[in-house]
Amino acid sequence: MFSANLEDLIIDIPDYPEPGVIFKDITPLIADSQGFASAIDEISDNFMGRGITKVVGSEARGFVVGAPVAYRMGVGFVPARKPGKLPRETYSQSYELEYGTDSLQIHKDAMGPGDKVLIVDDLVATGGTSVATAKLVEQAGAEVVGFGFLLELAYLNPREIIGEYYQQEIFTVIKVD
Amino acid sequence: MFSANLEDLIIDIPDYPEPGVIFKDITPLIADSQGFASAIDEISDNFMGRGITKVVGSEARGFVVGAPVAYRMGVGFVPARKPGKLPRETYSQSYELEYGTDSLQIHKDAMGPGDKVLIVDDLVATGGTSVATAKLVEQAGAEVVGFGFLLELAYLNPREIIGEYYQQEIFTVIKVD
Repeated sequence: MFSANLEDLIIDIPDYPEPGVIFKDITPLIADSQGFASAIDEISDNFMGRGITKVVGSEARGFVVGAPVAYRMGVGFVPARKPGKLPRETYSQSYELEYGTDSLQIHKDAMGPGDKVLIVDDLVATGGTSVATAKLVEQAGAEVVGFGFLLELAYLNPREIIGEYYQQEIFTVIKVD
Repeated sequence: MFSANLEDLIIDIPDYPEPGVIFKDITPLIADSQGFASAIDEISDNFMGRGITKVVGSEARGFVVGAPVAYRMGVGFVPARKPGKLPRETYSQSYELEYGTDSLQIHKDAMGPGDKVLIVDDLVATGGTSVATAKLVEQAGAEVVGFGFLLELAYLNPREIIGEYYQQEIFTVIKVD
């Protein structure tokens, strides 16, 4: 376990990318060898032993957390990408962002029945991206086992939104009240 | 060592994203638990013991390979991002792509003198992205130690382009002639 406070490695950027939004810059934590290892280990260790076969992370910062978690857990990584980025047949799911709307896609053959999937992202704010990613997993016929986040903006109540659709465990390394 | 042929886990997509370009889809390899682990281990093991302090990977597929390599090596990861994605002061470097032009940025405080940096990407084609990333590392006053790629399109001669600027080792898991 990393002894320093991981939260101290995150920088608040007021009014970015839009007025009224406080952007949480996780790059200093990711660039810190001990902080990065500790965060990846905490998410991975929490979900070890549950038969997970795939980790899915959403573009682009979700790749930075999700891919190492997949590596650490000894499973494959599936990128949920913005439209037009995946070259073969995809499932698609639109969702609302904290500011705007977007959609995510996964390759149709990326997972299937029998796969037990952990959804990982750097940050959960409103929970919209996480629900969309979980719906992609379900479109593919795979099972959502849980959600793992580096950072949770608890004041935006993401657990309520996710909880409307999914009762699986939500694990967060750093919770911001 | 993974016994199957890693190259069999990569799918060729002709005329994507533009006519005449053969896109190499690495997502099946990344989604394969053994293939993914083997690829990350090969890159990491090759550069172990050289005092590397940071891995840098470029948006977005470079995150999928670079972040687990950083985790495996026990160092921090620095994302080289497209313009407008990093919220604080950045160094910027433009470059030519196989199809078009673009630029990459890193936070000014992401690395500095004393850092020994490994540049990792999923694929090296013309080498332009890699040279741009290396120049970002140099702008920050850090040292480029080497380049690690999952896939090298050797027929585009990336080693020649990179070699015009950098003599550091280039390591590739899968070379396509």
